[in-house]
Amino acid sequence: MPESDRTETVPAGEGSKLQAALKQMAAAIGAESVHARGAQLDRVARATIPDPKKPAALVTPKDSADVVQVVRIASQYGVALWPVSQGRNWGYGSATACHDNAVVLHLGRLNQILEVNEELAYAVIEPGVTYRQLRTFLELHHPDLWCDCTDGPPDGSVIGNALDRGLGVTHYADHFGTLCGLEVVLPTGDVIRTGGGPPDCQTWHTHKWGVGPHTEGLFSQSNLGIVTRAGVWLIRKPEAFASFTFDLARVADLPRLVDTVRELALRGVLQSACHVVNDVVALCVLTQYPGDLLDRHSRLPDDVLRDLCRRYGVAPWSLGGGIQGTAATVREVKRQLRRALASLGRLTFLDDRSVGLISRLNQWSARSAAGRSVARWVAGAAGKSPEMLQAAPHIHSVLKGIPSDYFVRHAYFKSRLPKPELADPDRDDCGLVWFAPIAPMTGRHVSELLRLCEPLFEQHRFDFYAALLMQNARSMIVLMSIFFLKDDPEQVLRAKRLYEELCRATTADGYQQYRIGVGGMDQLIASTPEFVSFARTLKAAVDPSKILAPGKYGIR
Amino acid sequence: MPESDRTETVPAGEGSKLQAALKQMAAAIGAESVHARGAQLDRVARATIPDPKKPAALVTPKDSADVVQVVRIASQYGVALWPVSQGRNWGYGSATACHDNAVVLHLGRLNQILEVNEELAYAVIEPGVTYRQLRTFLELHHPDLWCDCTDGPPDGSVIGNALDRGLGVTHYADHFGTLCGLEVVLPTGDVIRTGGGPPDCQTWHTHKWGVGPHTEGLFSQSNLGIVTRAGVWLIRKPEAFASFTFDLARVADLPRLVDTVRELALRGVLQSACHVVNDVVALCVLTQYPGDLLDRHSRLPDDVLRDLCRRYGVAPWSLGGGIQGTAATVREVKRQLRRALASLGRLTFLDDRSVGLISRLNQWSARSAAGRSVARWVAGAAGKSPEMLQAAPHIHSVLKGIPSDYFVRHAYFKSRLPKPELADPDRDDCGLVWFAPIAPMTGRHVSELLRLCEPLFEQHRFDFYAALLMQNARSMIVLMSIFFLKDDPEQVLRAKRLYEELCRATTADGYQQYRIGVGGMDQLIASTPEFVSFARTLKAAVDPSKILAPGKYGIR
Repeated sequence: MPESDRTETVPAGEGSKLQAALKQMAAAIGAESVHARGAQLDRVARATIPDPKKPAALVTPKDSADVVQVVRIASQYGVALWPVSQGRNWGYGSATACHDNAVVLHLGRLNQILEVNEELAYAVIEPGVTYRQLRTFLELHHPDLWCDCTDGPPDGSVIGNALDRGLGVTHYADHFGTLCGLEVVLPTGDVIRTGGGPPDCQTWHTHKWGVGPHTEGLFSQSNLGIVTRAGVWLIRKPEAFASFTFDLARVADLPRLVDTVRELALRGVLQSACHVVNDVVALCVLTQYPGDLLDRHSRLPDDVLRDLCRRYGVAPWSLGGGIQGTAATVREVKRQLRRALASLGRLTFLDDRSVGLISRLNQWSARSAAGRSVARWVAGAAGKSPEMLQAAPHIHSVLKGIPSDYFVRHAYFKSRLPKPELADPDRDDCGLVWFAPIAPMTGRHVSELLRLCEPLFEQHRFDFYAALLMQNARSMIVLMSIFFLKDDPEQVLRAKRLYEELCRATTADGYQQYRIGVGGMDQLIASTPEFVSFARTLKAAVDPSKILAPGKYGIR
Repeated sequence: MPESDRTETVPAGEGSKLQAALKQMAAAIGAESVHARGAQLDRVARATIPDPKKPAALVTPKDSADVVQVVRIASQYGVALWPVSQGRNWGYGSATACHDNAVVLHLGRLNQILEVNEELAYAVIEPGVTYRQLRTFLELHHPDLWCDCTDGPPDGSVIGNALDRGLGVTHYADHFGTLCGLEVVLPTGDVIRTGGGPPDCQTWHTHKWGVGPHTEGLFSQSNLGIVTRAGVWLIRKPEAFASFTFDLARVADLPRLVDTVRELALRGVLQSACHVVNDVVALCVLTQYPGDLLDRHSRLPDDVLRDLCRRYGVAPWSLGGGIQGTAATVREVKRQLRRALASLGRLTFLDDRSVGLISRLNQWSARSAAGRSVARWVAGAAGKSPEMLQAAPHIHSVLKGIPSDYFVRHAYFKSRLPKPELADPDRDDCGLVWFAPIAPMTGRHVSELLRLCEPLFEQHRFDFYAALLMQNARSMIVLMSIFFLKDDPEQVLRAKRLYEELCRATTADGYQQYRIGVGGMDQLIASTPEFVSFARTLKAAVDPSKILAPGKYGIR
């Protein structure tokens, strides 16, 4: 898309118009909620992607009435708003817009858990509610209910992730699919509830399709409204739970593994969104890039990668997932997994009891040399490294939907800083951009996609990070990450080029991304003209002033 | 909604404008595809509901290129089109529109099964493809794949039912939920594929959400486009299958039964859309209204109902569903069902072997008095009537997704004709209208809804037909049917009044219908003004000439 077109269709939101709008917003919702400068604005201007766009201001409404006022004023002045829930869309742009000078509308203060319906297993929440907050609340007040989470930031927004169609880890991993009943502020300031039906519709949060045209989809990966409240389906705590990990013995068997996972999913044996990760992903979780190589190699030399894999006991591909149900169901799923996978590699099951023992061993190991020896011996006997023993309780726990700070820290793989207790890759200038095409879940398709992308990573001298995430029984997200040094302009440039080439190459072969970062949204326009034209027709009708996130997913 | 408004917003499609449009359509797609009179038009003018609206003409395009031409011409002349797939929307209006003088656009000739992907378990089909056609094709060419069906017409359209958000019987019962990737002719004549992504998107039929705004929902229960092709997910044939029926012992335990079903569903034990039916439903399936009472009582007298229930061994409420999975899974589900239900009534399991025996016994019973005696004895021993023994193989088979002519014949409950081999309630002037609100799946909500509706049936002197269908683990459709004599104007009037009162009473208490017949679509307008206003904004943008099904679901 030529720059001229972008300038034409994106309200600039600059100069006196912006100043007047901000002034009126401050008068309407309070000066403390409008930030034209200062630390809070600087904070939402940071992102892990290359060259994030600069916001003009930050607005932090306290409730949905404030949101309505902000939208009305923005519409009046033609100022572009960029709504974010918690702004932790790491690797896809964090809180930053796809164009400069946006007013970031941060919904973090709308953080009420409005209802938990224990009987029907759902919660009604606002967009500022985080995974950590929801899970903690449930553990305290409704211990028989679980929520799903991602292995991403625990302080990410439940609604925000669902509207981006993010993927979790349990059998409720399809976050958009388990969202039900939205309250939406339209770009005109009107407020609707999706689903039709009477005003206090009894099934608003239990029956996703509602009556009449189903419109929830219009408010995901788009810019047609601001969701200020949503129902989220919760998991009835299962009678039994186990997790499994599986190390693939031979790289060449990856297509067979993918086909096996699909068949297990189609037959209902595997219900949770299991993840297949390559060696680089595992290393990111277990360790960091060797510091002495950071400035010499933007990609780990082959022999170093090989040594690290050996040192940390990392297989070329590993699979992990959760199993839940009655005790007998869990036994039967284990039996089916053994039957399907035993010939392909090493399968390990964990349950709360074994994880308890491992945790105690890990604690002992942290305290004493004797503990360390025993841990090493136990790990060796299980064919794992001591670091994998450290990771095991975290893996088991996140697969139950318990959010964890442990995994996010892998964004620091290539950081000059050590992994912190509480990760914040934006703050700490980690360089990271996600690229996430989706493939039909066949060994053939997934291999083709990997064959298409891996040489580009090699060519641009970046480590090939690839995680295969089961989106449903028929589709697999091939999540790739480019880790780069943000303080090295040449690397930043190369990361951008690689990203563009990945977009181009996969689109040319008919692969679509399941979710796009702000840096790649314009590519949608080129690949799907009829669809984008239809979406733009909707946009023009719903947002005549073009104030809501213009350009998001290519729609302006 | 006042009649004046309706006349204003619905293109009349009358007189010379209509004639000119039909003439041009005939020139464009062939005179044999355009019917301004004759048997075919008369056929689509018939419906089981009271006072169906009269169509002006029938157009039967042979392919999607024809559809585009018809839409363009209709738009040019401002003629209202009413698209139907097979027009077997019995009880909701069949092929008839919600206003007079529509041109019915019948898609029955678009009946190609374009692709079956065995590996990824989906089919790509056109809207004319029926359940019977798809299942027969799969049985012949892909015996390891099953499709879902309804217990409605086997010659109904798979896509049509899914777009109406119809409910099936297996674990793929959510027909809209298992639709994936649509080709849509917009009211302007433009053609889009939902899902975004590249032109030949590899995941078009495997990843429902696509990329960017998810728009499939806009084309269900609405009038924003004509679906000319869709992907439908298929079921990998399970290793084991069983069906169950359960007779509730005490009426007072219905709330407990509903709560039990919900918990079994939330815990993943019950995965198929099970049905709970009352005594009238069971009698409709097993027999007919006593002929000598037809003209004397529009509602079965209490003592007659009681006698019939005793005679046919019908419980006040019965539950039925399918169980599929590995052999061990099926055993475990049976064990869980026994544990949950045994104290509430009588649970019976059937598998292919026992059904085979019953079928042979039924055949023997049809041939000889000895067979009849044995069948009576066997039925008695199982606590069932011989008629229920006759029904058992049909129930077992439909729960596997095999479409059946057996159940549709229950539309003839109140017909003066005997049940025919091949049911066609439109042709045979059966009087039948569905009313289908949906409730949160709690005993309290479902009972409240029943308590709200049952007295209205009694007051208007119609039999209370109620089936509780599990739409998902949190919602239950309370499907009611009004059976009336079409040749009795007073009964027709009363049926209309009852329908209106049911709509009013349930809406007032916050219950929404999961699907609405053409006679009730305007009630949506009154109950959800903001939502309808939003839908109308979309409609105005997508269908500026207002030619596509104006008034459908209250949207014009």
